[in-house]
Amino acid sequence: MSDETRSGTRVVLGANQYGKAENRVVRIHRDTPRHEIRDLNVSTSLRGDFTDAHVTGDQGNVLPTDTQKNTAFAFAKKHGVSSPEDYAIALGTHFLDAAPPATGARIGVEEQAWDRIQVDGSGHDHSFVRRGTETRTCVVTVEGRGAEQQVWVVSGFTDLVVLKSTGSEFKGFLVDEYTTLQETDDRIMATSLTARWRYEGTGFTAGSGVGWDATYEDVKAIMMSAFATTYSRALQETLYAMGRDVIEARPEVAEVRFSAPNKHHFPVDLAPFGLENAGEVFIAADRPYGLIEATVSREGSSDPGLAWQAVPGFV
Amino acid sequence: MSDETRSGTRVVLGANQYGKAENRVVRIHRDTPRHEIRDLNVSTSLRGDFTDAHVTGDQGNVLPTDTQKNTAFAFAKKHGVSSPEDYAIALGTHFLDAAPPATGARIGVEEQAWDRIQVDGSGHDHSFVRRGTETRTCVVTVEGRGAEQQVWVVSGFTDLVVLKSTGSEFKGFLVDEYTTLQETDDRIMATSLTARWRYEGTGFTAGSGVGWDATYEDVKAIMMSAFATTYSRALQETLYAMGRDVIEARPEVAEVRFSAPNKHHFPVDLAPFGLENAGEVFIAADRPYGLIEATVSREGSSDPGLAWQAVPGFV
Amino acid sequence: MSDETRSGTRVVLGANQYGKAENRVVRIHRDTPRHEIRDLNVSTSLRGDFTDAHVTGDQGNVLPTDTQKNTAFAFAKKHGVSSPEDYAIALGTHFLDAAPPATGARIGVEEQAWDRIQVDGSGHDHSFVRRGTETRTCVVTVEGRGAEQQVWVVSGFTDLVVLKSTGSEFKGFLVDEYTTLQETDDRIMATSLTARWRYEGTGFTAGSGVGWDATYEDVKAIMMSAFATTYSRALQETLYAMGRDVIEARPEVAEVRFSAPNKHHFPVDLAPFGLENAGEVFIAADRPYGLIEATVSREGSSDPGLAWQAVPGFV
Amino acid sequence: MSDETRSGTRVVLGANQYGKAENRVVRIHRDTPRHEIRDLNVSTSLRGDFTDAHVTGDQGNVLPTDTQKNTAFAFAKKHGVSSPEDYAIALGTHFLDAAPPATGARIGVEEQAWDRIQVDGSGHDHSFVRRGTETRTCVVTVEGRGAEQQVWVVSGFTDLVVLKSTGSEFKGFLVDEYTTLQETDDRIMATSLTARWRYEGTGFTAGSGVGWDATYEDVKAIMMSAFATTYSRALQETLYAMGRDVIEARPEVAEVRFSAPNKHHFPVDLAPFGLENAGEVFIAADRPYGLIEATVSREGSSDPGLAWQAVPGFV
Repeated sequence: MSDETRSGTRVVLGANQYGKAENRVVRIHRDTPRHEIRDLNVSTSLRGDFTDAHVTGDQGNVLPTDTQKNTAFAFAKKHGVSSPEDYAIALGTHFLDAAPPATGARIGVEEQAWDRIQVDGSGHDHSFVRRGTETRTCVVTVEGRGAEQQVWVVSGFTDLVVLKSTGSEFKGFLVDEYTTLQETDDRIMATSLTARWRYEGTGFTAGSGVGWDATYEDVKAIMMSAFATTYSRALQETLYAMGRDVIEARPEVAEVRFSAPNKHHFPVDLAPFGLENAGEVFIAADRPYGLIEATVSREGSSDPGLAWQAVPGFV
Repeated sequence: MSDETRSGTRVVLGANQYGKAENRVVRIHRDTPRHEIRDLNVSTSLRGDFTDAHVTGDQGNVLPTDTQKNTAFAFAKKHGVSSPEDYAIALGTHFLDAAPPATGARIGVEEQAWDRIQVDGSGHDHSFVRRGTETRTCVVTVEGRGAEQQVWVVSGFTDLVVLKSTGSEFKGFLVDEYTTLQETDDRIMATSLTARWRYEGTGFTAGSGVGWDATYEDVKAIMMSAFATTYSRALQETLYAMGRDVIEARPEVAEVRFSAPNKHHFPVDLAPFGLENAGEVFIAADRPYGLIEATVSREGSSDPGLAWQAVPGFV
Repeated sequence: MSDETRSGTRVVLGANQYGKAENRVVRIHRDTPRHEIRDLNVSTSLRGDFTDAHVTGDQGNVLPTDTQKNTAFAFAKKHGVSSPEDYAIALGTHFLDAAPPATGARIGVEEQAWDRIQVDGSGHDHSFVRRGTETRTCVVTVEGRGAEQQVWVVSGFTDLVVLKSTGSEFKGFLVDEYTTLQETDDRIMATSLTARWRYEGTGFTAGSGVGWDATYEDVKAIMMSAFATTYSRALQETLYAMGRDVIEARPEVAEVRFSAPNKHHFPVDLAPFGLENAGEVFIAADRPYGLIEATVSREGSSDPGLAWQAVPGFV
Repeated sequence: MSDETRSGTRVVLGANQYGKAENRVVRIHRDTPRHEIRDLNVSTSLRGDFTDAHVTGDQGNVLPTDTQKNTAFAFAKKHGVSSPEDYAIALGTHFLDAAPPATGARIGVEEQAWDRIQVDGSGHDHSFVRRGTETRTCVVTVEGRGAEQQVWVVSGFTDLVVLKSTGSEFKGFLVDEYTTLQETDDRIMATSLTARWRYEGTGFTAGSGVGWDATYEDVKAIMMSAFATTYSRALQETLYAMGRDVIEARPEVAEVRFSAPNKHHFPVDLAPFGLENAGEVFIAADRPYGLIEATVSREGSSDPGLAWQAVPGFV
């Protein structure tokens, strides 16, 4: 990196990255009358020796963020979007070729799913309705070139909102002078789940045929099933069960990280109105909310390296 | 209303209303192990002679918004929530009994739908996932008491996001000196649809067994089918077709109003990169967006009266 | 309007309008080194006989929303932006010339204010910081042509967040079986205020030199002063005082409309922890919130005509 | 941490934390008629050995998030809020006493500033208007107990929106096959700045009289002045200048991290309308945007340790 003097103090440029965020790339595959749609929000960034850009203003090493944008759209055509992960790997490895000053690239993709509109009982060829549940995510980190290149893939989703109307308790907790919470053995448990999982290995290449979509769907189904069927003594226990089941079922997954707001649903006191409320009427609170974050790993899985760098999280 | 003098100017209190907005009422029907959930956002307001509250600060005529909140929760238990409309009618007619100074009430309800989580191929009894597509809405307006009471019902939804990847053109439009738009005979058409329909009549009562949920599902299905199958020469034409099909199929619907942002998807120019873009790669734009608003009515339908008062809209 | 037959039902196109929403127009006046900035969000729409566009898909009467967008940007240069109101009047009257099928136009403008960055005690020539408080708004409605043309102007702001930490009570209210609220004679009162005022008259023209900015600043100052100095027995009383003071002080204002969420700040019960809370520690609640809406007019002011059409509100 | 076996796979609980997020604490200091207000959004979390809570569901080590909430409100009274940092340090060190199983705590605070409403030229005693510009932030991390306890403080702000209408160029950049961007030597530069700075040292205690507020105001002023007066050859250069000036002026600051979206303002092509646009009319774009992130440190500053853990960022 770099440093310089002014009035005796020595100032150092530290870690930095730059790129184009939130390119809204919509790719229609229309080779047949039955169109396919991939609806992406793509953020790219480069890391490397960009000292001159910061210290002297010399942009000679800087591949403009506008060029990164152009590339994101061009690759949606040239490479196609068979999955967010495959597209992100193609884009990330390309940038290391295109920008010699870069030592690494980070590609983040969010995807919104669309369903076919049902007409007379079957899905329409080219009309779609936004599914609206979770946002699928992936973050691909590429570091180095040639034989030393490493490619990490973290997939996941944000904002999958799930709720259990029973089968959840909370009791036996630590008590101090500020504790007023009553124990409960039947409550609503709800969360807007963010989950991310790191794939084992760093040798990923574009077009390699890895079943990114299939793993995604299966991991999500495993998590939802565990959420539904685990009797919960705490959101922590539920998250751990979800992570454990994924690790057991999917050998390609090294590690799962969760961030789960406990979206409180408080039973409303209806006694003043002569009404009983046996777990039937709740107020859904906005703030504050509990926030539970946890990591569940496969024992012996590889070191995460740079996989989680610049991924929103808690570690 | 009222007026008063100060320094010669005469000031008049005009239309006013007050209430409690966004009560997050979650109702679990748990009479059997197979729970049902209705997840509502309820806003109530009263209209009437509230001059003293404004001019002299005397609150004797004011049923507090806190009481309105309590009532919204109590009625979720006492009356139940068989549908947003039925619940809103019960609440609105109650308020005219509870608050003699009120001459009218307005109840707005938004509902988020939940699906059962699938476990081993069947829906779980008490675990749900937020559907996440449109928000269902209803606005019930109650005016007067006894034999003169009128109850209007406007149902609808917001933010149903639909997209056609072909089957849409735009040409033959008016041209002036500021027109640069090129004609197109194949484009993406997408919108985040808000639709509201007024039911014919003003004699609605709570618990009357009207099939509010069934009409809702059918109207939405008709609209989506019309969206999918109408070759579109403009978003206006598509909206009209959607409204017309509903009016034809559902005699209980007097009128439909649409507000539809034209969510532009611009084809990206890939020619500088030696790539052809035959309707395959688009950038989804945020702002500005076209905004098309239209009303489609049944000829001879009744006067809307107060049905649309305080409903967000364009007329 | 129009109608048509299919399977016996007669369907009618009712009120409609179309336009381009949220054009983010930033105008720098740089005639001298001391730049001025106006930062606008402009929405335009046209009303008139657009039956063919809806019923047959013929766009011959439709001036595209893209052209409306171009015009909004061109007028920022050609006409300039001396104020949101002046600019909106210029744009609205232009559209009736440009689009013969239109019978009316509606121009909505939101403005964000910027302050000069302070450097060594004085404001910089061309560096600004977003002020961040309220959003200034205006809605100009133009109807008709030539001698019959009417131009209404409604100005205002949204989201001016104000709070009083004392000087507010609430008691003596109506009580029913669902009332649990305790009376209070000292509470926090806070709101995120939306206010809109209609100017008297319909003969406005662009460039007429009306002091739109000066009135805006004065009306806002009057309202804030009234908020601060009125001992409040209810938010209704405060709003009325704010409107009354404006009506008294500004003869050009015919009418003021308020929409004011009562942003509840509940005192936290600290007694379980052996602490007294004498109006010192509050939890700011999100939902639900009271919502108070009121109109204050000058007696004898003109009929509002179309001034409030398509303005978000409650009447 | 922990592990367990099921069907041969060994699963490990990794890093985790839990707490209560977004407690909306409003503290009125009303010892005199001239009230002071601190308006906070407080998030607390604990780290430590919570294996049982995850793996077996035993909550014996878990101080409930509800208790954390109570404590946040109680401390606003008991300890007071002289600054976000001081309050956060008090809260964080308390939690290590209250919860023996915890090994660390993280306290995040966001603060909204309020100004006094001006009445007749002077600030009102108890009526305030939300300032609305940046959100002030701090993150305090406490690790360990007794003599080994370390306390890191990271202060900052988010969403300070600044703009220069000239004095910014971008040229001489790296070009590849996807580059279409033209060089410019006069453009608008705007960003919604997030900045965070780490204080040197880990020995902070509550009530120590460190001038947190004074440093905050000075750092912000230095950054804004540097933004205004630096001729910018890239946003990178501007950020570096802002960080360098802070490091030089404030010896207590070890390190500054920036995240700065380049909020593009594109000049609108008015040539088709016969109008020249010499840097006067721009469209403010939403997405995509450039995103520039950088760290500027004092040479020889201490290792950041856990200071940046769970702080949103890019490294």
